[in-house]
Amino acid sequence: MLKLYGFDVSNYFNMIKLALAHKGLDYEVVNVYPNQEPEFLAKSPMGKVPALETEDGIIVETNIIMEYLDAKYPDKPLYPADPFAQARVKELVKFMELYLELPARRCHPEAFFGSKVSDETRKEVKRALFRGMTGLNRLASFSPYVAGDAFSAADIMFLYSVDLAAGVAHKLYEVDLLDGSTGAKNLMAKLNELPEVQKIAADRKAANKAFVEYVTSFQK
Amino acid sequence: MLKLYGFDVSNYFNMIKLALAHKGLDYEVVNVYPNQEPEFLAKSPMGKVPALETEDGIIVETNIIMEYLDAKYPDKPLYPADPFAQARVKELVKFMELYLELPARRCHPEAFFGSKVSDETRKEVKRALFRGMTGLNRLASFSPYVAGDAFSAADIMFLYSVDLAAGVAHKLYEVDLLDGSTGAKNLMAKLNELPEVQKIAADRKAANKAFVEYVTSFQK
Repeated sequence: MLKLYGFDVSNYFNMIKLALAHKGLDYEVVNVYPNQEPEFLAKSPMGKVPALETEDGIIVETNIIMEYLDAKYPDKPLYPADPFAQARVKELVKFMELYLELPARRCHPEAFFGSKVSDETRKEVKRALFRGMTGLNRLASFSPYVAGDAFSAADIMFLYSVDLAAGVAHKLYEVDLLDGSTGAKNLMAKLNELPEVQKIAADRKAANKAFVEYVTSFQK
Repeated sequence: MLKLYGFDVSNYFNMIKLALAHKGLDYEVVNVYPNQEPEFLAKSPMGKVPALETEDGIIVETNIIMEYLDAKYPDKPLYPADPFAQARVKELVKFMELYLELPARRCHPEAFFGSKVSDETRKEVKRALFRGMTGLNRLASFSPYVAGDAFSAADIMFLYSVDLAAGVAHKLYEVDLLDGSTGAKNLMAKLNELPEVQKIAADRKAANKAFVEYVTSFQK
């Protein structure tokens, strides 16, 4: 059976949970926080989560896991079959990761864990997030899904990545990153109504206290 | 005919040139520097290069262009067909981009254009590059190619991305990033001997002066 390494608060972990739920695939969870222990590094070369153990071996990086799942289990696809339409969905996924998720992540310590980031970081991230969101509005369709009329991997990335980036923008800069895109706001609401998304959100809520304690234990 | 937007000094642009040369595909070059003009943003949503204009539409992001080329022109593949082997090559490509290319890029102003980066950036990038290279040595095979016995997209990323990251490490920290991996050093030498790589290097050299003048004109 597929084995998913990670923890319920990780937004990337939750992307794979949603991908697996969408495809109706069974899997087992191995609860683990990112770490640099040799045993875990042998599974995930940067010590990051999620990692998916398959019959072929272990795969890391969220988009690559989703692409592998589509290749092995083609039912309920996360990517279109046509090469160009597929490239478009991959562009959207990568775009959100590079230009929203990664900059926002630099401010997680201040947004979620009560420490401070430097003024340099705060300024760089603000500029990056606004450029990223402007670019996403240029690239995405939101009619009603990110890539058009079908649910895809781009919606999974949007739900868990843009939402978190918006949380950072709200806490650090007191702005709503989704302002100016009704399509993005409507889609976020629509995705949050899915029963599988609500289940993942409940798991996340239940796991949050232990995770915050774990992270802040390193800051003392 | 395929139309490739970019300029000969860009390492990402040169990855696509090598991918196209490997596949023996004809294309036309449209010389353009990254820019935020509305006309170019309509082609490339972040104003970045390379962008590839195809019969289906325009594609951006180097790895996504390479994956599209493989789907449309399967001869001389850049990725293995088997889903797990393909995931491995994609992991390697993404790994080098996230953990070597992107951190190194933050120091390009100091390494290549005569300006200075902050001490914070300098320290963060040093740590990131060493972690990235350690992780790459864990993940890559280098026997003789990055992913094993066949040339793949991972070798293209390695040639143009790790080489540049090594340039940054050399200039800013006076260390050889490839020290400790004979396989990586041998592969870098082997790839640089390919005639198509030497042609791309000659084009790059010829275009460098104009590009440096262009970049430094913004710094004055």
